[in-house]
Amino acid sequence: MSKQIKNQEITSRDQDFAQWYTDVCKKAELMNYSSVKGFINYLPYGYAIWEEIQAYLNGRFKANGASNVYLPLVIPSSLFNKEKEHVEGFAPETLVATYGGGNQLNDPLIIRPTSEILFSDLYKNIVSSYRDLPKMYNQWCSVVRWEKTTRPFLRGSEFLWQEGHCLFETAEQAHENVIKFLEIYDDLGKDVLAIPFVKGRKTEHEKFAGAIATYSIEALMHDGKALQSGTSHDLGQGFAKAFGISYLGRKNVLENPYQTSWGVSTRLIGATIMVHGDDNGLVLPPRVAPIQVVIIPIRQQTPGVLEACHEIEQVIAKQGIRVKVDDDDNKSPGWKFAEYEMKGIPLRIEVGPRDLENGQAVLCKRYNGEKDLLPITEIEGNIAKVLDDIHTKMYQKALEHLNSHISDVEDHEGLKAVLEKGGYARMKFCGEEECELKIKELTNGGTARCIASENLPEGEVCPICGKPAKMVVYFAKAY
Amino acid sequence: MSKQIKNQEITSRDQDFAQWYTDVCKKAELMNYSSVKGFINYLPYGYAIWEEIQAYLNGRFKANGASNVYLPLVIPSSLFNKEKEHVEGFAPETLVATYGGGNQLNDPLIIRPTSEILFSDLYKNIVSSYRDLPKMYNQWCSVVRWEKTTRPFLRGSEFLWQEGHCLFETAEQAHENVIKFLEIYDDLGKDVLAIPFVKGRKTEHEKFAGAIATYSIEALMHDGKALQSGTSHDLGQGFAKAFGISYLGRKNVLENPYQTSWGVSTRLIGATIMVHGDDNGLVLPPRVAPIQVVIIPIRQQTPGVLEACHEIEQVIAKQGIRVKVDDDDNKSPGWKFAEYEMKGIPLRIEVGPRDLENGQAVLCKRYNGEKDLLPITEIEGNIAKVLDDIHTKMYQKALEHLNSHISDVEDHEGLKAVLEKGGYARMKFCGEEECELKIKELTNGGTARCIASENLPEGEVCPICGKPAKMVVYFAKAY
Repeated sequence: MSKQIKNQEITSRDQDFAQWYTDVCKKAELMNYSSVKGFINYLPYGYAIWEEIQAYLNGRFKANGASNVYLPLVIPSSLFNKEKEHVEGFAPETLVATYGGGNQLNDPLIIRPTSEILFSDLYKNIVSSYRDLPKMYNQWCSVVRWEKTTRPFLRGSEFLWQEGHCLFETAEQAHENVIKFLEIYDDLGKDVLAIPFVKGRKTEHEKFAGAIATYSIEALMHDGKALQSGTSHDLGQGFAKAFGISYLGRKNVLENPYQTSWGVSTRLIGATIMVHGDDNGLVLPPRVAPIQVVIIPIRQQTPGVLEACHEIEQVIAKQGIRVKVDDDDNKSPGWKFAEYEMKGIPLRIEVGPRDLENGQAVLCKRYNGEKDLLPITEIEGNIAKVLDDIHTKMYQKALEHLNSHISDVEDHEGLKAVLEKGGYARMKFCGEEECELKIKELTNGGTARCIASENLPEGEVCPICGKPAKMVVYFAKAY
Repeated sequence: MSKQIKNQEITSRDQDFAQWYTDVCKKAELMNYSSVKGFINYLPYGYAIWEEIQAYLNGRFKANGASNVYLPLVIPSSLFNKEKEHVEGFAPETLVATYGGGNQLNDPLIIRPTSEILFSDLYKNIVSSYRDLPKMYNQWCSVVRWEKTTRPFLRGSEFLWQEGHCLFETAEQAHENVIKFLEIYDDLGKDVLAIPFVKGRKTEHEKFAGAIATYSIEALMHDGKALQSGTSHDLGQGFAKAFGISYLGRKNVLENPYQTSWGVSTRLIGATIMVHGDDNGLVLPPRVAPIQVVIIPIRQQTPGVLEACHEIEQVIAKQGIRVKVDDDDNKSPGWKFAEYEMKGIPLRIEVGPRDLENGQAVLCKRYNGEKDLLPITEIEGNIAKVLDDIHTKMYQKALEHLNSHISDVEDHEGLKAVLEKGGYARMKFCGEEECELKIKELTNGGTARCIASENLPEGEVCPICGKPAKMVVYFAKAY
């Protein structure tokens, strides 16, 4: 392969954000399309990001009392039809198996679109006393929702996720659980993905099918659109009653438990791409980057250069930092710079003959392109700090972008203007479904993302319908 | 709950081994049955064993150059039909989806029974030069095979597994890969599950549909039946040709790569149960035990007892050992002993007032029931060694059981006798499919598990058909 080979180019964000996104997904080799429409192949570089997310969440989940389980891939139709709202919400997008072992099935099997029903069916059989509560089970799996229009990681007919399903004695415990796991998701953004979220309860219109309340975290993409990035549902006693989950309570009478569920998916990979990426490609926050540091030798034929690179690699690897040297002699340093920028590797270290003479290396940060010189002897003591600093600065940058894209609006003109430009419009709102549909029409697709506050003084009015306002809501266009 | 409550009883192994197995699976809460026949719920205690297996294998796989990916759940029928032997092998046991989003699908979707086809379809698109080789991708997922008779972990319509799929330039590299990953599986048995295997190539009759050669590891259960516990396939160029995977080789001509695949499944949980378990329940080898040490206070109202238990717990937990104290005052120590024996926890530590006076604790090993006294001050320095020793002794015990159940046989009477009694009959064999079917009939279900040796002197004869013998084969009845 020639050294002159040109790196693959990607569309610029301002020219066509959607095309930029697809280019990055494919050219950074995060995924590619499979032969089945809407189903993608998660390639090693994309899947490794998911593995980092899994590792963080598994630690937090287990520390907070949840255990991992695995439940069936399929739900019998007869069981699926038991909780009315839920089935109405999901039935239109199911994939249904009708043949097994060559025979037509009497009770067709729905490929799980979510597993509230399966967990309810399990809990019915293993919970009989208040001593069996709380139950906090989680599973990592894929789910299938038959989508007409799909985009890598954001919306697919199959996606990977985790779903936690819990049972409690009291409504208060269930509510606490809903909030606690929403906070864990918020921490994942702050501590791992460098993504700030707005978060809160969903409006009636936007809540999960079968829930009494849904809470979400919402990220703001570079183009000003929101992305729902995780949800936590208070299911009340609806599923328990529909599926016959009951237990002998402390007062020796049969009771129905209170149920919750919460989940995040590979959508978070999409959020990471669209929050941090730039016109040179992916920009990965260090804590999920499959490779955190890449070392590029300059004039690698010069004696000592490659040796120095590999010594630095060892020093860094010893600290548990994911590092690699690219010493492929068939590619120029410039080609490699562009390649690893495309792949979003947080930190590049360059070492050439002149650097060696001066006992130093060049450190280049992906998120802002800044170059610093660091004595080679100081790499060992500073590398972890540099990565932490990159994380903090990436979070701050994203937070400034978020904060500068939240506007308080007083009327439908203001709402329309903000949603057209991109970002969140924060507005007093009546909370009525009808009014929400009207806003969607007025703003060409704007939706209530989540509730910012529910403590409004008497006498406040919804500027859209004129009825009493009951809450302040974040509106935005969303993915 | 009363202190007098009786622990759940299980059937003894000699009375009914199959019933014993099911009892252990259910009463140790490894799994329970779901509402769909053949699909089980993997409960936390069972799933945690799988997570330990995953952690070990992920480490080994990655160190040997494999990367994790995730490919679609479904295979279009049109694609499924491309490799003839493969489709004939799997078609009779597929689950087929025919409706998506309310509409009948033009090309029905097979729920993956294994993913050779999907990986081939991916590789076709991402491999174009010899520089793209080797490729070594692995995925953790569930697969569906519509089975008529199912048993927890051993045979189910859905099970969890990993499947590695690799491409190489040469047949030699492919063969090396097949053997290397078979060795990793063998190490998993030796180093983690405390299970010795016999291993080798499968006969033509028993090999994987579409492979040119299959290698397997075979464990011997307590009842003398074999359990195929992992396979590694040399697929040759068959799939590459059927699916059009080609690359520009070093000599600048298009070539087809050589392909391999290898996998282990949650069957390994079944093997662990049936190799080590006894009439008191599960016996877990320490390195996969979700809880490695349980501490039981005796007369826990006596001042100092509970404090001592929790201090020991902290000392042990600090070493990364999975430990818990059961200080539930509603259950007697005797009840707890039986309960944690059922659950197979490798080591129990008892601490009572008399022990405290003497500055010691009682250590009881699950696998042999032996009790030792150890000064409390020496627990910190010895606990890891005690667990390692338990592992070693459990492996040796299983190895002795295996070795004492391998018999060389010279004729069909000998073969029949060994297979009736249980264990492996090692016999010279012609290798013909016809003869293998005859053996199955003669022995009421005995099969060739794997080939022990292929270096036979000229003139040796297969005692069943009288034709020249080409190999020595392990025959057994199998799960």
